[in-house]
Amino acid sequence: MSSPIIAVAGGTGHLGQALAHRWTQSGLRVLIGSRTADKAALAAREIGARLQAPLESGTNAEVAARADIIVVAVPFAAQSEVLESIREAAAGKLVVDTTVPLVPPKVMRVQLPAEGCAALRARALLAPGTKVVSAFHNIAAHKLATGGRIDCDVLVFGDEKEERQRVIELCRAAGLRGLHAGGLANSAAAEALTSVLIFINRHYAVDGAGIRISGPPDCAL
Amino acid sequence: MSSPIIAVAGGTGHLGQALAHRWTQSGLRVLIGSRTADKAALAAREIGARLQAPLESGTNAEVAARADIIVVAVPFAAQSEVLESIREAAAGKLVVDTTVPLVPPKVMRVQLPAEGCAALRARALLAPGTKVVSAFHNIAAHKLATGGRIDCDVLVFGDEKEERQRVIELCRAAGLRGLHAGGLANSAAAEALTSVLIFINRHYAVDGAGIRISGPPDCAL
Repeated sequence: MSSPIIAVAGGTGHLGQALAHRWTQSGLRVLIGSRTADKAALAAREIGARLQAPLESGTNAEVAARADIIVVAVPFAAQSEVLESIREAAAGKLVVDTTVPLVPPKVMRVQLPAEGCAALRARALLAPGTKVVSAFHNIAAHKLATGGRIDCDVLVFGDEKEERQRVIELCRAAGLRGLHAGGLANSAAAEALTSVLIFINRHYAVDGAGIRISGPPDCAL
Repeated sequence: MSSPIIAVAGGTGHLGQALAHRWTQSGLRVLIGSRTADKAALAAREIGARLQAPLESGTNAEVAARADIIVVAVPFAAQSEVLESIREAAAGKLVVDTTVPLVPPKVMRVQLPAEGCAALRARALLAPGTKVVSAFHNIAAHKLATGGRIDCDVLVFGDEKEERQRVIELCRAAGLRGLHAGGLANSAAAEALTSVLIFINRHYAVDGAGIRISGPPDCAL
């Protein structure tokens, strides 16, 4: 099976850039998307210069149309607009939503949306038949950007095991351990945990607290 | 400061018995509560026989009246009834709610209550002025009962830092690392995580998956 082409919508943000960097480095073909093609091209050039490998770019809708998997890495406030912009291009494909429902200014307080979690909101916004998996909620983007080892597991949620497995392989390509964590509704756990981790960072004056699941074998790295 | 007297409402269940056992073992004075005094007395005799130390017991309301801290360890379906039964006796005291909103038969699926989480539900059911902290959501009771080392942190939620700290000391007395994890609303994260851990146990065929927070120093053990 050939490698999938991955579009990162919101590829100019911290998490999107860090993931795009790691995936490109691992040999995957990554397209950088943003609301405007200019911003996407700038980020693609920056990542490409660091890796000495050119990256393609375009608007979120353009890169979504050319990809097999679309990773959405945008702030909660932009989630619905960005998902609507890729809705048509992403129909029937795999969309990996990374949205954490942080509501400033109280980002240390869990405030899940009325749908139950951002992942269920994503599914409601996307076209029927689009596969939705959520992941990468608890990874500190600035640590991911450094290229070092991340002391944090990735909980991967989705209603279809095969689609979760594709994302667990993307975790591995980024140097992360992904774990099957149940259906899309379970995404509430990881989304809520991000506020807890921000609280712990502040309370214990640490940088980038993470979560590790004890028990499962280290099967995914 | 003298040790607090701890009442365990629902002290006949797996989690309540295991906590009561560990706390008694550490030298704390523990009262076993249940819906009926007979059932409580039976559990108190069992724990007392294992430890060769007698434990007092009574109905949940009776032990709540005699304690400084009331730990509620009952299934979600019994939470409101038990909290109502101790409401008067617990007024103004510290109540530690351990309720996880598992809704059978789909216990591997996150199903948070309308209030946002079971801990906020507890606060709404208790008398004004009662201090509410939630904790112990992710600990596998059968592992806690064995007396061995538990590879799982306890996330401790509550709106007052001092009250959370009292519960972190209870964690330490039970051989567990407790961590300040934010306000009561954040309890949604740990409550939801329990369904995720049950899913992981099933998916990876492991026994008692747990969560560890990386980052904070091992300050609490």
